[in-house]
Amino acid sequence: MISIVLIGSGNVATHLYNAFLNVDAISVTQIGARVLDKVPDADITIIAVSDDAIATVSSKVKNSFVVHTSGSVGMHNLQNNTRKGVFYMLQTFSKDKKVAFSKVPFCLEAENAKDYALLETIAKSIGKKIYSVSSEQRKTLHVAAVFVNNFTNHLYKIGNDICEKNKVPFDILKPLIQETALKVNQLSPEKAQTGPAIRKDQKTIKNHLNLLDTDQQKIYKILTKSIQNGN
Amino acid sequence: MISIVLIGSGNVATHLYNAFLNVDAISVTQIGARVLDKVPDADITIIAVSDDAIATVSSKVKNSFVVHTSGSVGMHNLQNNTRKGVFYMLQTFSKDKKVAFSKVPFCLEAENAKDYALLETIAKSIGKKIYSVSSEQRKTLHVAAVFVNNFTNHLYKIGNDICEKNKVPFDILKPLIQETALKVNQLSPEKAQTGPAIRKDQKTIKNHLNLLDTDQQKIYKILTKSIQNGN
Repeated sequence: MISIVLIGSGNVATHLYNAFLNVDAISVTQIGARVLDKVPDADITIIAVSDDAIATVSSKVKNSFVVHTSGSVGMHNLQNNTRKGVFYMLQTFSKDKKVAFSKVPFCLEAENAKDYALLETIAKSIGKKIYSVSSEQRKTLHVAAVFVNNFTNHLYKIGNDICEKNKVPFDILKPLIQETALKVNQLSPEKAQTGPAIRKDQKTIKNHLNLLDTDQQKIYKILTKSIQNGN
Repeated sequence: MISIVLIGSGNVATHLYNAFLNVDAISVTQIGARVLDKVPDADITIIAVSDDAIATVSSKVKNSFVVHTSGSVGMHNLQNNTRKGVFYMLQTFSKDKKVAFSKVPFCLEAENAKDYALLETIAKSIGKKIYSVSSEQRKTLHVAAVFVNNFTNHLYKIGNDICEKNKVPFDILKPLIQETALKVNQLSPEKAQTGPAIRKDQKTIKNHLNLLDTDQQKIYKILTKSIQNGN
């Protein structure tokens, strides 16, 4: 039996807690970050709090093995005096949406092989995709995730804005959004590129710019240039 | 029986031709754009050639009802002397990938109700999602499609570049890419936004910028600013 203490009350902590509850070989306790004077002993203590709170929370935990769940905080930012590690899941977690853990990539890091093996056992108990990722690699993954998640979602928003302004249903674009995302499973994004930028179709580019507002034009121009430069 | 002549030999023409072949109520002939002196008579002539060639090709067609398949060319750019229309499918077509026409949005336009009804009958024979879209609306849809398809794909490429440079598998990001795309079916992109930009998390933004090259920084900054301004 592996004992886990989960510190935190946000989406990540709650989804993880519910997943661990279904694993026979794991006993799990979830506590809020404000009751740190009463942390029960455990094989592993998982701190799932906001990035800014990780140092403070971890400094108060006396348990032997402490990990955090952040994409952008280094393992050594943990301030416990015992063993450290990272249990990062690269996926967006929404409050009301069930998480398909079998599809979630687990990015694991520990100071020694035995601790890494424990993290791997725990990850495999709820998931399938396990990766060994160093703190440096994780930080760059987190930036890359901002591009393919936050920034991509913002481009969807601009698409939505353009549709609303011109009274066409955004629904028309949704199959294209899905198809574009599915394509990366078959083709590298570089090879999948189509459209006026890569074709250097200046006439269409000029027509497009005339239909956009100033902020949209700036984004259109910089991304078109980046595509054309092969950046 | 509806008779269709398809002019063109690219992806759109070929995928359409194969789809129409399976419809009992349609007889279809595909011809290349270079044999325009021998265009057979038909109820509808669909010109599926590059945007630049539409005017020239259409000027040589004598058939009674001529449509093009372009997202960015107006209906009245057709140069035939007879009736005009548009049969635009908003989806990316790849040479080797089967098209799921049931998921493709058909954006239709014609000069009169009878021609529109014919376009609708033809679209419904191979697809399910039919929209009446004017030339002006179609042009703005086409710009919006550049944002959610070409530009989004370029952000995937940047994500891939960051992964390659730091020797982490791009595969780790693929579930996030799919999840981000699926989210628009449940939540508006505006409401779905997460990450350091919308949180105004300047510390993380600064750390991210330090990990990027100059061109990536420019794109990171402009998109972060646009998210924060609610543009």
